Amino acid sequence: MSQWTPHDEDFEQRVRDSFARQKIMATLGARIAQVAPGEVAIDLPFSEQLAQQHGFFHGGVLSTIADSAGGYAAYSLFSPEASVMTVEFKINFLSPADGEALRALGRVIKPGRRLTICDVEVYASKAGRESLCAKMQQTMMCIEGHPGIHRAG
Amino acid sequence: MSQWTPHDEDFEQRVRDSFARQKIMATLGARIAQVAPGEVAIDLPFSEQLAQQHGFFHGGVLSTIADSAGGYAAYSLFSPEASVMTVEFKINFLSPADGEALRALGRVIKPGRRLTICDVEVYASKAGRESLCAKMQQTMMCIEGHPGIHRAG
Amino acid sequence: MSQWTPHDEDFEQRVRDSFARQKIMATLGARIAQVAPGEVAIDLPFSEQLAQQHGFFHGGVLSTIADSAGGYAAYSLFSPEASVMTVEFKINFLSPADGEALRALGRVIKPGRRLTICDVEVYASKAGRESLCAKMQQTMMCIEGHPGIHRAG
Amino acid sequence: MSQWTPHDEDFEQRVRDSFARQKIMATLGARIAQVAPGEVAIDLPFSEQLAQQHGFFHGGVLSTIADSAGGYAAYSLFSPEASVMTVEFKINFLSPADGEALRALGRVIKPGRRLTICDVEVYASKAGRESLCAKMQQTMMCIEGHPGIHRAG
Repeated sequence: MSQWTPHDEDFEQRVRDSFARQKIMATLGARIAQVAPGEVAIDLPFSEQLAQQHGFFHGGVLSTIADSAGGYAAYSLFSPEASVMTVEFKINFLSPADGEALRALGRVIKPGRRLTICDVEVYASKAGRESLCAKMQQTMMCIEGHPGIHRAG
Repeated sequence: MSQWTPHDEDFEQRVRDSFARQKIMATLGARIAQVAPGEVAIDLPFSEQLAQQHGFFHGGVLSTIADSAGGYAAYSLFSPEASVMTVEFKINFLSPADGEALRALGRVIKPGRRLTICDVEVYASKAGRESLCAKMQQTMMCIEGHPGIHRAG
Repeated sequence: MSQWTPHDEDFEQRVRDSFARQKIMATLGARIAQVAPGEVAIDLPFSEQLAQQHGFFHGGVLSTIADSAGGYAAYSLFSPEASVMTVEFKINFLSPADGEALRALGRVIKPGRRLTICDVEVYASKAGRESLCAKMQQTMMCIEGHPGIHRAG
Repeated sequence: MSQWTPHDEDFEQRVRDSFARQKIMATLGARIAQVAPGEVAIDLPFSEQLAQQHGFFHGGVLSTIADSAGGYAAYSLFSPEASVMTVEFKINFLSPADGEALRALGRVIKPGRRLTICDVEVYASKAGRESLCAKMQQTMMCIEGHPGIHRAG
């Protein structure tokens, strides 16, 4: 399904292990929904604790799961010794994030030895309908040989 | 100190009231540190619950307080009936967000009837030293006459 | 083919007329390759006059045709009286823009009454092969009733 | 005046030599106005050939000189053997670029071994008054040991 070939067979386990160490994900209630080479989906059920003042998901919460979805999409293609760091991202909010749950779907557009560029879409589901509510374009960096020093991986 | 003139005298109270309704701010432990016309600072003490797997603040958490700091900087210059919505933002992560606390300082660069452009700097403080760890450029929208329908204000 | 419905039948002519008034397009040697509702492609043959110091297309030249491709994709869905303005864009350069020609393909992701969000891909063609060399995410504004005052439309 | 220390004494000559090889700069009519460590200004007089359909500078033209101003600000701090490449940038257009000339002022915010982050402001001057018309946040990459292969340096 994915157009990318992972570096090692254990890419999914590496992604899930690193995700489990990101305590903010448990704080928000986010979980990994899918891991494929260069593609990672993260789900987040709604809770009032994640809302802005009108009761929708706060834009920063969307950004947080989108950043991790893109970051792990990149990380899934790295060698086992490498770690991943977000250089920067840009996100457009297309409609209010109103729904029972969010899904952030991160995909690698262009893998590279040092920099990997990802595209992330965030969908809100409400009463069985999904709508695109945000879109992110993101630059990730691969850091070789420092497995312990990384932000998103 | 600020170069901007607020629309009404009660701008600070409007900002603080709206901030109090953003439940995600309490969830993270963020608080408003300063409100001036077109300038808002938000502080966030470190907690393990906000970390990525290496123990630093997650980039999405920085984005969340930066988005609100810039959003409220814009909102402070709006008329009392208006609400504020984030159109988009872009954030660069300049160094690991390693420290006891973060401060996001949002400033209006260009106010406008519909769109307001803001610049937000995020500082990490560690052992008494502050360092710039992220920089955001952000586009906010003013929505007149719908005081209830807004994302960040 | 396109998922969007134009406001009027003359959308293609409106786009071509406005493009013809953008003198920078003739200066660069760019021409419209395709106009569909919410989708516009612009072609640009290589010339040394457009190069950076290593002989490839300058990144700013890519940005210029990408900005117009996305801008006209948005404009194609506007009402005949409206004009279009670029609020902002973000562009990633994925590989050197090395080739005989570029094609910028702009597509509307989310149309809106005021703001329209577009995605633009820039391809370089060399010896019969096309490669994605840049990707832009862009925010356009619709201005009603001021047909003369617009930046990209 | 600048807070940065250049790697070598000849930084200004390196910047000017590389700029002279960017043929697009001569095509547009742009020239370097100032070079300091980590700071480069580029001027561009108005010409109809650079306009969008309403007669103002096209946004892509602003982006082009802003990209080079930030790129050379970064390059001024590199070692003599290194070259510079634009990873990505984001630009907000704050007001119509209406005037007799533009000045793009690029400044390094955060230098780094691999990545350097810059901020670029673009001013339009009209009848003796300057106004900020665009703001860019930009990520540059340093490539060691390939003096010939670079986009902006």
